[in-house]
Amino acid sequence: MVIIGGGPAGMTAGIYAARQKINTLLITKSFGGQMAKKAVDIENYPGFEKISGWELIQKFEKHLKQKKIKIEIDSVRKIKKIGQDFLVLTASRKQFQAKAVIVSSGADPRPLEVPGEKEFIGKGISYCVACDGPLFADKKVAVVGGGDAGFEAAISLSSFAKKIYILETGSQIKADDENQERAKKTGKIETITQIALKKIEGKDFVESVVYQDKSSKELKILKVQGVFVEIGSQPATSFVKGLVEFNEKDEIKVNPFTGETSTAGLFAAGDADDVPYKQIVIACGEGAKAALAVANYLGKL
Amino acid sequence: MVIIGGGPAGMTAGIYAARQKINTLLITKSFGGQMAKKAVDIENYPGFEKISGWELIQKFEKHLKQKKIKIEIDSVRKIKKIGQDFLVLTASRKQFQAKAVIVSSGADPRPLEVPGEKEFIGKGISYCVACDGPLFADKKVAVVGGGDAGFEAAISLSSFAKKIYILETGSQIKADDENQERAKKTGKIETITQIALKKIEGKDFVESVVYQDKSSKELKILKVQGVFVEIGSQPATSFVKGLVEFNEKDEIKVNPFTGETSTAGLFAAGDADDVPYKQIVIACGEGAKAALAVANYLGKL
Repeated sequence: MVIIGGGPAGMTAGIYAARQKINTLLITKSFGGQMAKKAVDIENYPGFEKISGWELIQKFEKHLKQKKIKIEIDSVRKIKKIGQDFLVLTASRKQFQAKAVIVSSGADPRPLEVPGEKEFIGKGISYCVACDGPLFADKKVAVVGGGDAGFEAAISLSSFAKKIYILETGSQIKADDENQERAKKTGKIETITQIALKKIEGKDFVESVVYQDKSSKELKILKVQGVFVEIGSQPATSFVKGLVEFNEKDEIKVNPFTGETSTAGLFAAGDADDVPYKQIVIACGEGAKAALAVANYLGKL
Repeated sequence: MVIIGGGPAGMTAGIYAARQKINTLLITKSFGGQMAKKAVDIENYPGFEKISGWELIQKFEKHLKQKKIKIEIDSVRKIKKIGQDFLVLTASRKQFQAKAVIVSSGADPRPLEVPGEKEFIGKGISYCVACDGPLFADKKVAVVGGGDAGFEAAISLSSFAKKIYILETGSQIKADDENQERAKKTGKIETITQIALKKIEGKDFVESVVYQDKSSKELKILKVQGVFVEIGSQPATSFVKGLVEFNEKDEIKVNPFTGETSTAGLFAAGDADDVPYKQIVIACGEGAKAALAVANYLGKL
């Protein structure tokens, strides 16, 4: 079988597939998935009270690589069905044939889609605080998104930046109480609600964010050198479009007992599927289910 | 809310509930659930390549107890629905009222139901190799059940006992290849298939097992001083019988996206529910889902 993606779901599926002695190839660009983007320590993966995303990835990766499965560092471009089998085509023009596939390709950050966003990627716009936070030492930055991810990004940035604005389109903050308290404690985080983001401006680098205050209808300019985008994610499922049934968010519809999809032999797990709560340990559980369901599909269970 | 059970599902639900600041009471007889019964090291909980059940329980327990939730060491006798709320009655005659309940009470070993079984419990009959294995040093023992649990029990027993018979009713061994190889390596394990167990005999302690060879129809006697029962488990759900819909195995039927049951406000996770694959990491994922679904039910998400 081929497992697509090296996040929590894909790595767990790999560990389980090896145990079932399924001849398995795991294709991924990198390891960790959403764990790699965690701006603050992970405190809800059972067994580790507090661990950085980076450390937990190391532990998962070591666990996986000690098992007998093949790994290909690549990204998947397309999957075709050929009779009962699947042909997996990668970005580097390789092809792999498999009797079963687990799609655990996770999700990508949802973009802002405002003028200036694309131009300033890597020049002040970032989708990953864990990756780029330290570049903003003593700078003013904005975090777009007032949910848990936005608050966690802002809390993490408070170790570096001198001022962080959290910009939220709604009138209410959606982050949990614990995150709101921790943000307050930093003394550096200011939350602005009811904003409609208009554009991002600058010369070579980001210099400001322009937004409309939805209550007063006024256009406002916020001087910042960085913008972190934390408005959710979109499933990384375009390479199976047409092959399998999606929901309205482009998530792959699964039978959550087993990870089965509308296409026999194709399974999904983790943030690419339509299980509503996106959590590391939930993705792991779904990855284990999918691998066992593949073993069953291949007549091994 | 009240969480019933301190296995992987219940402990994970507790960790997640605390994070959501739900006023939570966890009622359990003991911690660990099926982890406490693992006769060999756990090698498929992602993040730990190889860890004893006991050690993993310690880590989970420490993680849980560092969170703000109340714990009551007790067992649940009955749950009654009172209007929108639940009344949870315990063996030690305490009562707790809750707006929501997660049933993560796990499963108990399935008994053999042959003459002699009940009489010799604790006198040679055991349902837990991890607990009782060392008592059988240099003895001959039988393990009833030729699945993974039976093989793992036999492998673990090979450190103590001088001879282990695995007794399997079917004509085929169901344990995975890895377990079969490890059993062979011990040089102490003999597998007997197609048996129909008739009775367990002895004076003060177990002395022998009587079975019929299903192919020859002959009655045979096996001299052993211990019998370990590994023929699967039955959900520990009797205390909610009538309150919520079961499947034919007495597992609580859930919506596996959320852990919701047929009764509003009552959720289930782990081996007590009807998710088919019973694994630690799957139980954890279901526990996390149920806690988040409770947060949602209580208007917190």
